[in-house]
Amino acid sequence: MSTDIPDVGGISIGILGGTGDQGKGLARRFALAGHSVLIGSRSAERAQEAAASIGGSVRGADNPTVAAEADVVIVAIPWDGHRSTLESLRAELAGKIVIDCVNPLGFDKQGAYALAVEEGSAAQQAAAVLTESRVVAAFHHVSAVLLLNPEVDKIDLDVLVLGDDREATDTVQALAGRIPGMRGVYGGRLRNAHQVEAMTANFISINRRYKAHAGLRVTDI
Amino acid sequence: MSTDIPDVGGISIGILGGTGDQGKGLARRFALAGHSVLIGSRSAERAQEAAASIGGSVRGADNPTVAAEADVVIVAIPWDGHRSTLESLRAELAGKIVIDCVNPLGFDKQGAYALAVEEGSAAQQAAAVLTESRVVAAFHHVSAVLLLNPEVDKIDLDVLVLGDDREATDTVQALAGRIPGMRGVYGGRLRNAHQVEAMTANFISINRRYKAHAGLRVTDI
Repeated sequence: MSTDIPDVGGISIGILGGTGDQGKGLARRFALAGHSVLIGSRSAERAQEAAASIGGSVRGADNPTVAAEADVVIVAIPWDGHRSTLESLRAELAGKIVIDCVNPLGFDKQGAYALAVEEGSAAQQAAAVLTESRVVAAFHHVSAVLLLNPEVDKIDLDVLVLGDDREATDTVQALAGRIPGMRGVYGGRLRNAHQVEAMTANFISINRRYKAHAGLRVTDI
Repeated sequence: MSTDIPDVGGISIGILGGTGDQGKGLARRFALAGHSVLIGSRSAERAQEAAASIGGSVRGADNPTVAAEADVVIVAIPWDGHRSTLESLRAELAGKIVIDCVNPLGFDKQGAYALAVEEGSAAQQAAAVLTESRVVAAFHHVSAVLLLNPEVDKIDLDVLVLGDDREATDTVQALAGRIPGMRGVYGGRLRNAHQVEAMTANFISINRRYKAHAGLRVTDI
């Protein structure tokens, strides 16, 4: 792999939907890695409570404040409300790298399955809404359980990073590499994001079958 | 992982589309693992030529003969013609485990992308056509280049095996494990096959970016 990795140590990270498990888990890991982390919610109060529960230097605020203040913003909100939340933050997110990690999934008694998305994927929907932002898709298959477990100090997996802006994907790959055990791997253009999001359904099946918190590694790179 | 692995050493393997690179590569590896392998093509003569080029004990025949004679049949035909070929082999494939490894992909100057499939995926199309067969999806991300390279004696990756018939997926997982370095991992129900097929487009992007023959490993199992 290339060793020409951008220096991302000083980047501040905002997490929309930071009160959910995935958001809290990523907030915790990026704070441990030394980043300034700001988590967002519709309610500033709930965001501050969640930030306090994570501890360290993590702070909470309402979503527009987080979107405006952070250098790079992770979208970890529920799929339901994805489009409308992003539409409301278009101005604050303009010019920024926005990392979408949302998995549009349905659940029934047979487990999880991928939902059809008009734009192709959550990431493509984000790109369609946030025309002034640099949308990257990443962190889909990272187990919130592992992220939040204080006894887990290393999370061994590759984060597939997709996008059409090379500088943005390089930055997000480097950010993934800030979490011990993780490696950011370029995974293709945004038009190929659907299958990466949808694969989360397969990982849920794998986790159920093997009683695991499965992730993926890319071989031969 | 479970150690209750079915004994599949005596299973004979037929490969429809065995004259393509993926089919020839799998034929070569299964023959090296000691299986009786029969590769198929529309023309028996072309199948026999391809079999001779692989060497060892691999034999060639027309598709209906292969479908009728082999215990387990791998579908490695081009996506174009997938449905009609399977329709013509419905009777021969009845009662058998049929492993679909077809990736419905399109290509343009930006690389590969997933095609929309009416039934959801190639594997679901196979299941819709072959109502009397036990359709399993597997071997999507295995590099034909590595399979065919005589200097590669071990292919380190996991083969995601998807299907709704537990005995069939167990058998195919065990078959994957016959190729040195490979491990068969249950990857979910057939309704979640689309993203596994489509991920091949991402691996093509990864291969291009990293000049690799990438595959995947599932962590924590």
